[in-house]
Amino acid sequence: MNFETEVKMKIAFIQTGGTIDKDYPHSIKGWAFEIGSPAFKSILDNAQQRHEVSVYEVCRKDSLDINSEDRNQIRSLCQSLNEKAIIITHGSDTLLKTAAALNYLQNKTIILTGSMLPEKFKDSDAPFNLGMAVAGVQVLEPGIYIAIHGLLAPWNDFSRDMKTGKYHLKIKG
Amino acid sequence: MNFETEVKMKIAFIQTGGTIDKDYPHSIKGWAFEIGSPAFKSILDNAQQRHEVSVYEVCRKDSLDINSEDRNQIRSLCQSLNEKAIIITHGSDTLLKTAAALNYLQNKTIILTGSMLPEKFKDSDAPFNLGMAVAGVQVLEPGIYIAIHGLLAPWNDFSRDMKTGKYHLKIKG
Amino acid sequence: MNFETEVKMKIAFIQTGGTIDKDYPHSIKGWAFEIGSPAFKSILDNAQQRHEVSVYEVCRKDSLDINSEDRNQIRSLCQSLNEKAIIITHGSDTLLKTAAALNYLQNKTIILTGSMLPEKFKDSDAPFNLGMAVAGVQVLEPGIYIAIHGLLAPWNDFSRDMKTGKYHLKIKG
Amino acid sequence: MNFETEVKMKIAFIQTGGTIDKDYPHSIKGWAFEIGSPAFKSILDNAQQRHEVSVYEVCRKDSLDINSEDRNQIRSLCQSLNEKAIIITHGSDTLLKTAAALNYLQNKTIILTGSMLPEKFKDSDAPFNLGMAVAGVQVLEPGIYIAIHGLLAPWNDFSRDMKTGKYHLKIKG
Repeated sequence: MNFETEVKMKIAFIQTGGTIDKDYPHSIKGWAFEIGSPAFKSILDNAQQRHEVSVYEVCRKDSLDINSEDRNQIRSLCQSLNEKAIIITHGSDTLLKTAAALNYLQNKTIILTGSMLPEKFKDSDAPFNLGMAVAGVQVLEPGIYIAIHGLLAPWNDFSRDMKTGKYHLKIKG
Repeated sequence: MNFETEVKMKIAFIQTGGTIDKDYPHSIKGWAFEIGSPAFKSILDNAQQRHEVSVYEVCRKDSLDINSEDRNQIRSLCQSLNEKAIIITHGSDTLLKTAAALNYLQNKTIILTGSMLPEKFKDSDAPFNLGMAVAGVQVLEPGIYIAIHGLLAPWNDFSRDMKTGKYHLKIKG
Repeated sequence: MNFETEVKMKIAFIQTGGTIDKDYPHSIKGWAFEIGSPAFKSILDNAQQRHEVSVYEVCRKDSLDINSEDRNQIRSLCQSLNEKAIIITHGSDTLLKTAAALNYLQNKTIILTGSMLPEKFKDSDAPFNLGMAVAGVQVLEPGIYIAIHGLLAPWNDFSRDMKTGKYHLKIKG
Repeated sequence: MNFETEVKMKIAFIQTGGTIDKDYPHSIKGWAFEIGSPAFKSILDNAQQRHEVSVYEVCRKDSLDINSEDRNQIRSLCQSLNEKAIIITHGSDTLLKTAAALNYLQNKTIILTGSMLPEKFKDSDAPFNLGMAVAGVQVLEPGIYIAIHGLLAPWNDFSRDMKTGKYHLKIKG
């Protein structure tokens, strides 16, 4: 078996911030909890994954602070990329809003994901969620999807319980 | 939003052993490295996932020790389950052999996965791999699949590099 | 060997808050990073330690918010405890101030410690620091000590680099 | 405050193997669980410790395989080192035997430690145990000590429960 015969996929990862990337940098005074470098790098290393990965950064924001200018930038970046498979890491609070802003993009499989605990936490859901996203871009038709809480589905199938902040899938029809 | 309107999926998890479940129990004499309780439980807890999960155990074996009787048992269990979505955790050495043994099963989406490092390791690939599998059973047509090294594909698309022990996808045709 | 012949020590652990206990609770809106239950519990479980441990909570505060009333309460608690060995987990910013407030306590070995990263982080210094403290209360004469950055010494041997927030030991004389 | 005024201690770390250093290297065939590079390096990094550390390796053995030649080598190394503070990481099964072999060394504070779970495990006791050892070499008189299960004491105060493999302190007199 020659390695030149290996099928590899090109996947673009876009960092926008959110809990998944939160770090706790050392600071001399009081509380310090900032969005750091993208968590997907160490997760992909641990996964020993074989795809050709490219990495982009739009912003490092809590998702409540992501504004329409940021969303335009995410959208433009997705359009301009050669990759057909795109994974966006994002804060959980406004996943639906950013997904809606990407909705008219054609011919790309775009999955938004994030996590409830920072990747740096021992019990983080981040590696699991990113695993869902990497699986999804390989097997799903073009469209805009969300991967969170063990769910992977088109973004507009999701609804959010505003008491717990958790997402679930709506019954259609 | 009423929770009764939530779509939930039933997923069966089958433990067979392998690296993913390896633990290091305390023992008084020398080396002690055994296959423990299924790693997917703590991974699914961390993932805060929302599916209806049922758990089965066929064996706790290194995959080189899985014999045709074990494979018959895995196959019979898969057939008998009501769940259409089945995830099998398995040692990496004989993933292809067990997948082949399941090949004639109809109407079920079955994904075999495992890990290169035990789930109890800080840098384990297990949560990522299980995330791929959970994503896959939601969106893939019935069939037998493997999820490993960031790859999710029908089992017979995989080939193994016998020098590194790693799997990759073959070019078809 | 009869277990009744085992020597056990009584150690009191006092939680006051600080980075060591910081958690990331789920919340629906924006940033959420709060001081949770005491980190020393899971650390001591992992350590499989054999002492008789009692647990007290004075406050759950960032150490910049610890005021003189809190320090009086810490001091009173230390005085009232039967245990001669006391470990206080504390935010790193005002370790010296709280240590000074305890300075006239007699006949007890009191060690203040904390961490630069929350215990819930994969790479936290918390288990190491608590190991230093548990070692210290077993072997040190009564007095007030600090354990941080690999250093264990009487509190007034420490100085702090105000640029990095790190502690080190002063040359005496 | 000038950093030249900082007190630093020289500590020698000696690797001999044991559970603390056990890794799970990738191999193509079956079980693979070997003693890897010394765990104390990443633990000391995480601890952000400030001592001058030197690192030595005598062997990478399960402690049941450590023979009298190995023990002579450990003893000779301890004698030859300039450092007065020495920490030896070691398998838990024969801690007492190696400690006894070092017993006539003068003028050095030597602490043997190890762990019940490999350092690479999420719930390992290794960082805590190494914290005890680093604390001990700073504050203890010359002698041979063991740090395990939350205990730090002269080696011949320890006894081992042969049912559980755990150490405890004997009542003297």
